[in-house]
Amino acid sequence: MDIVIRNTHALTMRGGALGSIESATIGVDDGDIDVIGPADEVDVVGDREIDGRGTVTLPGFVDVHAHTGLTLLRGGAQDVPEIEWMNQTLGPFAEAMTEEDAVSGARLGVLEAVRSGVTTVGEYAADVARLVEEVYLPLGVGVAAAETINAVDSDRGSLGPDDPYPMDDDLAEAGLERNEALFDQFDRTELVTPMYGPQALDMVPTWLVEEVRDRSRSRGRSIHMHVAQGEREQRQIEAQYGDDRTTIGVLSELGVLNDRLLAAHLHGASRAERRSLADAGVRMAANPSSIVAIDGIVPPIVEYRDAGGTAGIGTDQAPGPGGHDFVRELRTAALVSKADRTDPTAFPAWEALRVATIEGAAALGIDDRVGSLERGKRADLLVCDLSHPSIAPTVTDPFETVVPNLIYGATSEAISNVFVDGTPVVEDRTLVTADSEAIVSDAQERAERVFEEAGDAWRAAGSRLAGRFGDGTP
Amino acid sequence: MDIVIRNTHALTMRGGALGSIESATIGVDDGDIDVIGPADEVDVVGDREIDGRGTVTLPGFVDVHAHTGLTLLRGGAQDVPEIEWMNQTLGPFAEAMTEEDAVSGARLGVLEAVRSGVTTVGEYAADVARLVEEVYLPLGVGVAAAETINAVDSDRGSLGPDDPYPMDDDLAEAGLERNEALFDQFDRTELVTPMYGPQALDMVPTWLVEEVRDRSRSRGRSIHMHVAQGEREQRQIEAQYGDDRTTIGVLSELGVLNDRLLAAHLHGASRAERRSLADAGVRMAANPSSIVAIDGIVPPIVEYRDAGGTAGIGTDQAPGPGGHDFVRELRTAALVSKADRTDPTAFPAWEALRVATIEGAAALGIDDRVGSLERGKRADLLVCDLSHPSIAPTVTDPFETVVPNLIYGATSEAISNVFVDGTPVVEDRTLVTADSEAIVSDAQERAERVFEEAGDAWRAAGSRLAGRFGDGTP
Repeated sequence: MDIVIRNTHALTMRGGALGSIESATIGVDDGDIDVIGPADEVDVVGDREIDGRGTVTLPGFVDVHAHTGLTLLRGGAQDVPEIEWMNQTLGPFAEAMTEEDAVSGARLGVLEAVRSGVTTVGEYAADVARLVEEVYLPLGVGVAAAETINAVDSDRGSLGPDDPYPMDDDLAEAGLERNEALFDQFDRTELVTPMYGPQALDMVPTWLVEEVRDRSRSRGRSIHMHVAQGEREQRQIEAQYGDDRTTIGVLSELGVLNDRLLAAHLHGASRAERRSLADAGVRMAANPSSIVAIDGIVPPIVEYRDAGGTAGIGTDQAPGPGGHDFVRELRTAALVSKADRTDPTAFPAWEALRVATIEGAAALGIDDRVGSLERGKRADLLVCDLSHPSIAPTVTDPFETVVPNLIYGATSEAISNVFVDGTPVVEDRTLVTADSEAIVSDAQERAERVFEEAGDAWRAAGSRLAGRFGDGTP
Repeated sequence: MDIVIRNTHALTMRGGALGSIESATIGVDDGDIDVIGPADEVDVVGDREIDGRGTVTLPGFVDVHAHTGLTLLRGGAQDVPEIEWMNQTLGPFAEAMTEEDAVSGARLGVLEAVRSGVTTVGEYAADVARLVEEVYLPLGVGVAAAETINAVDSDRGSLGPDDPYPMDDDLAEAGLERNEALFDQFDRTELVTPMYGPQALDMVPTWLVEEVRDRSRSRGRSIHMHVAQGEREQRQIEAQYGDDRTTIGVLSELGVLNDRLLAAHLHGASRAERRSLADAGVRMAANPSSIVAIDGIVPPIVEYRDAGGTAGIGTDQAPGPGGHDFVRELRTAALVSKADRTDPTAFPAWEALRVATIEGAAALGIDDRVGSLERGKRADLLVCDLSHPSIAPTVTDPFETVVPNLIYGATSEAISNVFVDGTPVVEDRTLVTADSEAIVSDAQERAERVFEEAGDAWRAAGSRLAGRFGDGTP
């Protein structure tokens, strides 16, 4: 056995519940979980033996939706009206980023994610293959990679909200080709699950949606798409498809609403539309911090799960929500859901833990390999130090307070060790697969150049943020 | 000069704004800030010289409302209906705590707070003098200490929500005496600001409110009181004062609503009542995580500040919100406020930073001594490491992204150093005034005993949590 963790409190997520084993032995061999059970029932010896006393071990967290490259622009866009966020605030900075800048930002974002216990990210990016090769595989982190297909030129700062975005068929075609190349390149790579990534209904031509629909069906692929993400999109759908149309209505007509679709957001859909999506097996990516920060709206994940839908949680991107700390995101998800429903019982800790692991894995369509601790699954796991001041004390009698404390108390600093595919990625809170300091300083250097270059365009775009801080002095 | 910090980015909170000095020198002497200004304008030498490059320095955070002793019960009460929280869920565990247990819990809570940059806590506890002596002064953390006066026996598990709590005049009298002793003991202690602490209108007899009102007026003292904290309280006010009465109505009649009152919560008041409080100069303690977790309600801090009221933010207690991490609390405050108002511009980062510092100090009535970086104020400051993966990158051109990144990005792990009264309390993320590991292990040991002892009473009280986890198996 390669690794044996002894006497850890395991939350396995098996049996439709948390599957608690208060003193567990976990054996890892050849990247998979070979054995897991109560310490007194498991008899194994590991090449590496880990003393798990004072820890809790969970399946690694699954962040179902993220654009980690934008971590380079952390702080660039927030506290503005939704209608200004994408084009007038983030846009000018994003325009100034090179592909190398995106790689640098992604390294920082994935560093942040994995230190918070994330072992698989639902990455969404243009030229995502490069991020897979230069970020995810070297860092040793799992990725469900969607290649963005976006047929709208990103320089949209001059367009009004009701001017239909001009579509470029060549951009759509090129995106589709990159998508196919992604499948060819990574279909047999353990840590990588390629997906189709048409950006959003308002950003691709109709024929592209139909083409992706047909290919996903015939080749058994998933589609990861932004769906019904608010006012800006809705105004585009009306401009492009007609005043009475909605994203869900058009997508339904196009035959895309089925269990191959992972739909990010959905807050712009009606309750009836969301119910129909849940019934159709569409999976949901809910991004609480991001959508609250950008739209002032709480993603309807409680409603979607109540309707029987499968849902996971994502951190989306750094500008707005601030980053990719998944421990923090789980707490945020629980709290904003309670506030949204005026109900302190909404999205309780035990549900948040399942959504973070096995349900998130199901949302990405990879729950056959990850999301729970059981024999034969990939050894993606996080170890949390119960002596950290943010989670202590924990008791097991009369109930296991580690469950609420993981969601409401713990900070990511409590995550001491993270394994992906049986390989240590974080040890003693430190990334061991790359140089954290170099990642940060590279991002810092690039950000200084990007923000400076974009300054004039940003001021000219005239967001509320530029109005307040355009002279640089807070 | 005792300490000089050079080339740090200072956010001074002066001039009604953030008062940014991109490269500042800060000189600390005899516990006070002796000089602060742009590096090229300040010429001093320190006995200790600190290189502040790559850091931002702020006034220490002011957590205006906390019951840190309850940190021992972290995870004991959350995800239940509001009406069950206090008496059926938290109550049985709180009953089993000794005074020593509260001291132990407070040490853990203050450890958590100070590591997140908090330099003054608005502590609220019975026998708060003991916490001041055994926790705050040894750890070297500032405290605005309110001695709880509660005339209701804490064993209320058997009462229905509409049974008026029985009042014990002896308990009220004893609380008042402890209050006066608190003033006598700590009136001349730099780190301590004693306050009157009548628990809440529903938990003290009317004569006690009148007595505290008169004493606070004649002696120029502040009163820290829970006011309008939701359904449980409102049902008590109706049971005790009559069906048509509200907390604010009764307190107004009693003449307590003036600028000597710090009112915690206020979410149970009407908008008109809150406006009248803001007009009267009543200060507000808003506790976003706590009230969202316990009530599913977002504290109306945006509304109160818009009405011209003075407000600060508090972490309240660990059971429910999870702990005393103030960096996390600021992000939560901003996000839940945006969600509550469906407005991404609500409670922007720059306002959150002021509320965390100078406005919080004003809420506690200590803004003459703390809350901003200026000559003559107490040297309470926090230093944040800008190379931490949660806050990097930061740029200053075209605007200072450190402002949003402190609120939305940073985790408490980014706070590297904390000084209180010019003395290092946290260095390199580690508490230096006490042994963190001993604090955690003592709390762990005590929590195991308290929870176990209370198990039967907790199960018998029959909260939703007991219903789900009463058999110990999640």
